[in-house]
Amino acid sequence: MRVMGVDPGLTRCGLSVVEGGSGRQVTALDVDVVRTPADQSLPQRLLTISDVAEHWLDTHRPDVVAVERVFAQQNVSTVMGTAQAGGVIALQAAKRGIEVHFHTPSEVKAAVTGNGSADKAQVTTMITRILGLQQKPTPADAADALALAICHCWRAPMIARMAAAEALAAEQQRKYAARLKAARA
Amino acid sequence: MRVMGVDPGLTRCGLSVVEGGSGRQVTALDVDVVRTPADQSLPQRLLTISDVAEHWLDTHRPDVVAVERVFAQQNVSTVMGTAQAGGVIALQAAKRGIEVHFHTPSEVKAAVTGNGSADKAQVTTMITRILGLQQKPTPADAADALALAICHCWRAPMIARMAAAEALAAEQQRKYAARLKAARA
Repeated sequence: MRVMGVDPGLTRCGLSVVEGGSGRQVTALDVDVVRTPADQSLPQRLLTISDVAEHWLDTHRPDVVAVERVFAQQNVSTVMGTAQAGGVIALQAAKRGIEVHFHTPSEVKAAVTGNGSADKAQVTTMITRILGLQQKPTPADAADALALAICHCWRAPMIARMAAAEALAAEQQRKYAARLKAARA
Repeated sequence: MRVMGVDPGLTRCGLSVVEGGSGRQVTALDVDVVRTPADQSLPQRLLTISDVAEHWLDTHRPDVVAVERVFAQQNVSTVMGTAQAGGVIALQAAKRGIEVHFHTPSEVKAAVTGNGSADKAQVTTMITRILGLQQKPTPADAADALALAICHCWRAPMIARMAAAEALAAEQQRKYAARLKAARA
């Protein structure tokens, strides 16, 4: 499974592509950070991010896009820019029929370090070790984008099991309702 | 000048097209509300909004897109969805080289009613009167999208004057700096 990881942001947007193999085997195929200048207009910044994301989606053809779920911990204008950057990338994935999954920062940290409140340095150290990289990925946005993709590779079997269980439960619910209706008739 | 007004939102996104003539003359060309179901995924909802916006941009070919500037007064998840809906529309405008301007809700209310804290009913009543409509536009998102477009038509000369004044000031600053440098040499 090929996963494109996205650490969304207007000023710096981290992008990665990771190939997940059997078990916990993961290989980094690409990682980069898109930067857009703060003195550009919002539409222009979103266009730059969207154009790069489109290029990545069309070149790397990921099976899934994993995006960091944004919360409003930081200041509001930053959160909105982050949500918008993530939104345009989710849009471009949806246009291509590519699944998009969102993971919270603590899910990502827990997946790669075993600790949901690990700091940035710990995440970077673990990412470097997991992927067998020669150097630590910088800046933090690049490491975060890799962490997101790895997190998705490792959580994907669980997400699939949960989706299957939910589908089964819904199916049983339907059958039960039908039987109940027949019994009442 | 043809202005496309956007009252962004995930659940309901108001779109309008208004033609501004000389003075305060304005004509409504189109108005509608795009709805996306809450049980759809975020990427799918953004795709629906983006597709409709693309169709409007290509059919109506507006000179400018006027979008409501989002603030974090409401709950955070609503604000993020609103920012994302506005973001994908701004992106599609930028792709076509169409200018995007943002107006705050109080700027819009002040422009159409003369009162920056007018309520929704007052805005709708004024919009109906200004555009000479037979019926009040509903829902509120449709009226808001019309109000945004009218607001831009009426503020455009002032925005242009401000931009010209800023350009002039920057030019004088450059000349002054050059003369100062020459005098010191």
